[in-house]
Amino acid sequence: MRLDQTSLNSKKKIMVLGGDGFCGWPTSLHLSQVGHDIVIIDNLSRRNIDNELEAESLTPIQPIHTRLNAWKEITGKSIDFYNIDIANEYAEFLQVIQSEKPDVIIHFAEQRSAPYSMKSPKHKRYTVNNNMNVTHNVLCAIVESSLDIHLVHLGTMGVYGYGTAGLKIPEGYLDMEVKKENGERVEQQILYPTNPGSIYHMTKSQDQLLFQYYNKNDDVRITDLHQGIVWGTNTKETNLDDRLINRFDYDGDYGTVLNRFLMQAAVGYPITVHGTGGQTRAFIHIQDTVRCIQLAIENPPARTDRVFIFNQMTETHRVADLAKLISKLTGEEIAYVPNPRKEAAENELHVKNDLFLSKGLQPITLNEGLLQEVTKVAKRFKDRADYEKIPATSLWTKEQKPGVPEV
Amino acid sequence: MRLDQTSLNSKKKIMVLGGDGFCGWPTSLHLSQVGHDIVIIDNLSRRNIDNELEAESLTPIQPIHTRLNAWKEITGKSIDFYNIDIANEYAEFLQVIQSEKPDVIIHFAEQRSAPYSMKSPKHKRYTVNNNMNVTHNVLCAIVESSLDIHLVHLGTMGVYGYGTAGLKIPEGYLDMEVKKENGERVEQQILYPTNPGSIYHMTKSQDQLLFQYYNKNDDVRITDLHQGIVWGTNTKETNLDDRLINRFDYDGDYGTVLNRFLMQAAVGYPITVHGTGGQTRAFIHIQDTVRCIQLAIENPPARTDRVFIFNQMTETHRVADLAKLISKLTGEEIAYVPNPRKEAAENELHVKNDLFLSKGLQPITLNEGLLQEVTKVAKRFKDRADYEKIPATSLWTKEQKPGVPEV
Repeated sequence: MRLDQTSLNSKKKIMVLGGDGFCGWPTSLHLSQVGHDIVIIDNLSRRNIDNELEAESLTPIQPIHTRLNAWKEITGKSIDFYNIDIANEYAEFLQVIQSEKPDVIIHFAEQRSAPYSMKSPKHKRYTVNNNMNVTHNVLCAIVESSLDIHLVHLGTMGVYGYGTAGLKIPEGYLDMEVKKENGERVEQQILYPTNPGSIYHMTKSQDQLLFQYYNKNDDVRITDLHQGIVWGTNTKETNLDDRLINRFDYDGDYGTVLNRFLMQAAVGYPITVHGTGGQTRAFIHIQDTVRCIQLAIENPPARTDRVFIFNQMTETHRVADLAKLISKLTGEEIAYVPNPRKEAAENELHVKNDLFLSKGLQPITLNEGLLQEVTKVAKRFKDRADYEKIPATSLWTKEQKPGVPEV
Repeated sequence: MRLDQTSLNSKKKIMVLGGDGFCGWPTSLHLSQVGHDIVIIDNLSRRNIDNELEAESLTPIQPIHTRLNAWKEITGKSIDFYNIDIANEYAEFLQVIQSEKPDVIIHFAEQRSAPYSMKSPKHKRYTVNNNMNVTHNVLCAIVESSLDIHLVHLGTMGVYGYGTAGLKIPEGYLDMEVKKENGERVEQQILYPTNPGSIYHMTKSQDQLLFQYYNKNDDVRITDLHQGIVWGTNTKETNLDDRLINRFDYDGDYGTVLNRFLMQAAVGYPITVHGTGGQTRAFIHIQDTVRCIQLAIENPPARTDRVFIFNQMTETHRVADLAKLISKLTGEEIAYVPNPRKEAAENELHVKNDLFLSKGLQPITLNEGLLQEVTKVAKRFKDRADYEKIPATSLWTKEQKPGVPEV
């Protein structure tokens, strides 16, 4: 099957939790466009956090109903929306599952910024409380509904940690050998031992235990996608109309590294590298995010399968190399600033992503055209930027220093 | 140092979270008796669950202030008490830490029954929400207080799972080998891959990730005790006065296997074995629980140490063997009933507990005298028993059947 259409007999009712967010919104549109029936549940928490941080999306995103009405006007396709706080409104959430009877639930409904999760005790506690209760309530409601729902969850490459010299990170499960009492060696496959680097990443490690348990006890069908850092802004669908534009985070909390560099260069702000920039990270373009999710939906596990874990990334890069590339493309200078995170200054990273490749993904890799598309978006909305929000000021410990360039 | 006294220069301020419960209460008295300064925090949730389940402790436990006043009267030692719901009253909890400045926090403040955690969506959700938020709030408050507090946590042997044929379960960390890309083998030590058997056990696996993270990021000193099934009722201290008596759970939710068998035999109720009784479990006497916790406090990790994990158990037994032993001792018949849990019908279990042995623990193992002490307690309070509360009726899935004997 081609990735841009779906045949009528594989049409699915898909509930997208967090469908108003940076990944959730383009995913909802893409799956609607290929012919699925989409319902979005979102409590608009990401927009509320914009208010809290006094840092809006660089792109002028429209209210959810303006977005949905524009989508209907342009494509003729309807997407239903429910404003439910899944962590705290279980009964309401269950009722929607029982009435909508989805085939698939895609779960983006977690607080997803590492710096935000480290800002203060309040932010740590919100992240743990929200993420644990949402994921658990989703699993609990699936079992309570007695429906055979395929759960697709957005996890993170960050659960693996980065201390894996010479070991190519497998997709979720690690082959290992242990020695028995009698000296005999046994091969086993285990969940890759996690080493998360922030409270946010830690909650995604905890999610894995919830998935493992509900899969074992209740045969829930689950696909967990360990996603790299997303870059890019728009997809084919969000590009159809200005009212469909996707959010673009440039601030020190929600702005992710490649997009942040591109935005900094576009507005004439130094490219801020934390520490030496020796960190190596995994990346994926937003257009591939939505394709991978489609592939995950089209290749569900059976009820007897263990949790499927796919690495949702297409390439790895050293942060300093990205900074140099963008500096070369744009002429903007690089500022090496303190690293507000407690992490290894340098690391190698080799990652398997065979599963998506075997399902037909043709990865979009870093190229000048797509980098320039981000720069173009950033330049267009330059006047909306608050430069004071650019530096990363959320500190991992009291010993760390904010990532502010010297003036 | 002897285990029944403490020297003045090692006297510690110890905060016991959940200090009104089955393990927390005798631990508080024991540590007070040996000379430490004890503060109890408890929201009395276990007593409230008694109300909910309409199943009281078989022993007539006294209100917390009656207990504490009796302790003062008998020993001259004061224990302070705060009624705080740590999951939901973070500010109050932090304030008590800041004013009491404890050297040690012992964390018993979790919902600790596997059957209770599986009763219904409401009970699953309560267990996850309570246990995750309490553990996280404790860690978060320790960091926010800037005090160098040693956290001792009551975990469970249940995080290991029971599928370890031929492998002696190590204390928390597993030696394993992985193969690198170039064929080279690397030895690594990892957190033992968990395989919890209920929502309750799953939360204790999640706790381990919280401990690993806060230890790594904030150098919090943590000892995690993976405890077996506790048996027995009273300790040296709770035996001093009837008003100090410890709770004894005999109901299908909170009654644990050995104590439940002894109580059933004492009141003339068939000894109910779930399934074949081929399950092998780890056990510890309540008197050893309090000694182990003392040893954990007296042997704290340094700030540079990783999380200390000790297996807090002294022996393993097959459930059917225990039933036969008690049947032989008491003449009561055994009833093989359906297993309400989804678990392996039979398993082997070999466990290391070298760390406590190396610190001087002289384990109490199953002996007739101590078994008869439990029977004596059960006989004494026989009239308080509600026989309808004895069977285990909380089901792991809709396919399971309650553990009710045929009549």
